[in-house]
Amino acid sequence: MNPSGLERLIEALRCLPGIGPKSAQRLAYHLMQHDRPGAARLGEAIGHALQAIRHCQRCNTFTELEICERCASPRRDASLLCVVETPVDMNMMEQTLAYQGLYYVLMGKISPLDGVGARQLALDRLLARATDGVVREVILATNFTNEGEATAHYITAMLKARGVGVTRIARGVPVGGELEFVDSGTLAQALRERRNLESS
Amino acid sequence: MNPSGLERLIEALRCLPGIGPKSAQRLAYHLMQHDRPGAARLGEAIGHALQAIRHCQRCNTFTELEICERCASPRRDASLLCVVETPVDMNMMEQTLAYQGLYYVLMGKISPLDGVGARQLALDRLLARATDGVVREVILATNFTNEGEATAHYITAMLKARGVGVTRIARGVPVGGELEFVDSGTLAQALRERRNLESS
Ligand SMILES: [Zn+2]
Ligand SMILES: [Zn+2]
Repeated sequence: MNPSGLERLIEALRCLPGIGPKSAQRLAYHLMQHDRPGAARLGEAIGHALQAIRHCQRCNTFTELEICERCASPRRDASLLCVVETPVDMNMMEQTLAYQGLYYVLMGKISPLDGVGARQLALDRLLARATDGVVREVILATNFTNEGEATAHYITAMLKARGVGVTRIARGVPVGGELEFVDSGTLAQALRERRNLESS
Repeated sequence: MNPSGLERLIEALRCLPGIGPKSAQRLAYHLMQHDRPGAARLGEAIGHALQAIRHCQRCNTFTELEICERCASPRRDASLLCVVETPVDMNMMEQTLAYQGLYYVLMGKISPLDGVGARQLALDRLLARATDGVVREVILATNFTNEGEATAHYITAMLKARGVGVTRIARGVPVGGELEFVDSGTLAQALRERRNLESS
């Protein structure tokens, strides 16, 4: 029922996760009817990004350089390597202002149901990075989901076998969190991982 | 925190309705990490659609021709003109197999809150279309929402003033409902039970 160029656009929009046939049609109509300048910018931005965006050779995050600015910075502590699932997670860590080391971005997580194993994540690259002779401690900051935990366990085994020091960020009640609104699994973990308090 | 080409893509993705900053970032990461072929197809489809897609000179729907195939068909009853809000609504009407006339697609509705009045909808084009000397009956099939009803009332007054016969599809469509989400049996019934409108 739609002209072919519009059908092609609708079909192409379905490459976006979470966009089904109806949503794709709505988006296509919106672009053609109400926002042609926006559509033109989007088309150009996609083309530019496809050409310019690659992965940092050291930390694997998105960059337009061979080695990203953070990895190239002499002000970061190269003996610490924090492993995160995504660039968003890396940004979250940066916003804490509590970390001065470097990162390795997995760009995913081990997820057997989605066919993602150690090989698809290219964990051999992380291994090479972590055993460069400068890294002293690898800090695992994958999510505390089933997949994130499985990923952390796999990486721990892989790195321990090479004698690399591995730590995991702590689990517990969020800062400012109220016990009433924390799930019991988290609370149980916070109880198990309780630590001694020094008199200050 | 993102390379500029990625930021530009994230910003550009926000032209899609319902996509906020977080969703846009997720979509951009997905395209760059997991679906570069899909991104390439999307970029090309946008470019092609922008060049090829225009509005039919008679019915105002999307087409790649001057006059769309439906308007050009000798098999349609040119004495009937059905007014709908969107191409989706036109498709819904077609799927009832209960209508053999032609269409006029408003590509919107009167919506004062969004700054859309008779002028923004270019209702003068509908008036010219409806008074071509061939159209005997204009069937209003705008949605039964507040805006759809307001649009129908406005068009009724405009056409009655010129002596054009106007009917409204029956309220078999649930009050507050949208054509896009109604089954075609209900819609066929509403079409059959269309009633004459009195000028008020
Ligand atoms: Zn880097
Ligand atoms: Zn047409």
